[in-house]
Amino acid sequence: MKDGYIYIYGRNPVMEAAENKSEAIVKVFVTPKAKLKDKHLMSVMDAANLEVGKLNPKDLPGDLDRDVVHQGVVAIVDEKKLLVPYKEFMESLEVSNNTALLVFGEVQDPQNVGAAIRSAAAFGISGVLIPPHNQAQISGAVAKVSAGMVFRIPMVAVNNVNATITDLKKREFWTYGLDGSAEVTLTEETFGKPSVFVIGNEGDGLRQMTAETCDTLLSIPTHERCESMNASASVAVTLYDWSSKNGGALGNK
Amino acid sequence: MKDGYIYIYGRNPVMEAAENKSEAIVKVFVTPKAKLKDKHLMSVMDAANLEVGKLNPKDLPGDLDRDVVHQGVVAIVDEKKLLVPYKEFMESLEVSNNTALLVFGEVQDPQNVGAAIRSAAAFGISGVLIPPHNQAQISGAVAKVSAGMVFRIPMVAVNNVNATITDLKKREFWTYGLDGSAEVTLTEETFGKPSVFVIGNEGDGLRQMTAETCDTLLSIPTHERCESMNASASVAVTLYDWSSKNGGALGNK
Repeated sequence: MKDGYIYIYGRNPVMEAAENKSEAIVKVFVTPKAKLKDKHLMSVMDAANLEVGKLNPKDLPGDLDRDVVHQGVVAIVDEKKLLVPYKEFMESLEVSNNTALLVFGEVQDPQNVGAAIRSAAAFGISGVLIPPHNQAQISGAVAKVSAGMVFRIPMVAVNNVNATITDLKKREFWTYGLDGSAEVTLTEETFGKPSVFVIGNEGDGLRQMTAETCDTLLSIPTHERCESMNASASVAVTLYDWSSKNGGALGNK
Repeated sequence: MKDGYIYIYGRNPVMEAAENKSEAIVKVFVTPKAKLKDKHLMSVMDAANLEVGKLNPKDLPGDLDRDVVHQGVVAIVDEKKLLVPYKEFMESLEVSNNTALLVFGEVQDPQNVGAAIRSAAAFGISGVLIPPHNQAQISGAVAKVSAGMVFRIPMVAVNNVNATITDLKKREFWTYGLDGSAEVTLTEETFGKPSVFVIGNEGDGLRQMTAETCDTLLSIPTHERCESMNASASVAVTLYDWSSKNGGALGNK
């Protein structure tokens, strides 16, 4: 990300962006070959009324590495138009006991961030809350790993994780921190209220203040031979469990 | 993998191998710096009675790329001593209704294979069955992504996925194929018998013959906006669900 622009790449993420969030796309770049052969891609760009320039694979736009798998198509996304400010998001959100949000608390690996967003979309989460510091931001890599789901589920900009948790508690959400050593297990939790799930850093977990701010810390029961789970697998399992108990996957967008 | 040797790298995977499967290690290579400074690593190598040679970061052994994150340590693992032949494994396996196995059916991405093995270890799966063809084999990358769990949970060599499923059915296992479009959902399944979970290719899913051979095809209920899940997230969710219903995570190794 440079100057508020996100450079996304690959056929699927760019098409997802064009179909679901075209207002956030500044410009698309397509190789002459893709322009000639990929009629479906071009018709989607056309339907979204996007400006299409020529992509030179030897000189990719923005900060993209030459070895990214772009499949002949790159797009510039305006971060401000992709991310919804927290207040605006909360004003438009209809909250029920089947509503849940995911909060990133210093997750570093774009693979984990992208995979967690894909799981959030799969299990009916209403929004993904992203703080500005010490957190992998939405990027081309995140968009790709998410299978374009960053353009289907609200990406919400928050200023501060702990202040956001405090505010959500005031709004009657129950806030859960994912913590491998917590006494309360995911399996026994019933999720009777609107829920918030906070996932911490891959190595260090939740920050202490964040853990103390959450209403409940939740662990996933695992076998003694394997102490820890991957961050994105933990998110997938937690959101599935919530969803299976709350009809979330079939419920509200 | 070359000549039956697997080159693993990184501090955690090599230590896991030394502590849990030292008989499969042919030789360890350590940089002079790591040898001097990493006393814990060296004491583990010593306790496992392993031959330690000098690692030259500019000329890594075997088929390792120069840019792998080896953290100063590489080991050669004898694939024959890591993988248990299927018949031998089944003879030693004590089967109860809380027993489950994971079968890879043409999973291509080492990231997915490693992550699935880590989830299998976390949720008390008794063994991971790996066919020889069209399937990402155990490698340094798989060992690393699995957080070394390839050395803690039995890795079982099978000749053929469909023949193995057929044999497991004869042995009173109930065989489940993971299939995003299946009518039976994971959430409603109760898992009353010893269980086998088969995960197919990332793009194409299960082969048709494999799907037809399974007793039940299982889907994970997802929101309409997200049709598909990542392969390793599907495995994590499925094995968690099984485990939460069968005490598997706390049960038998």
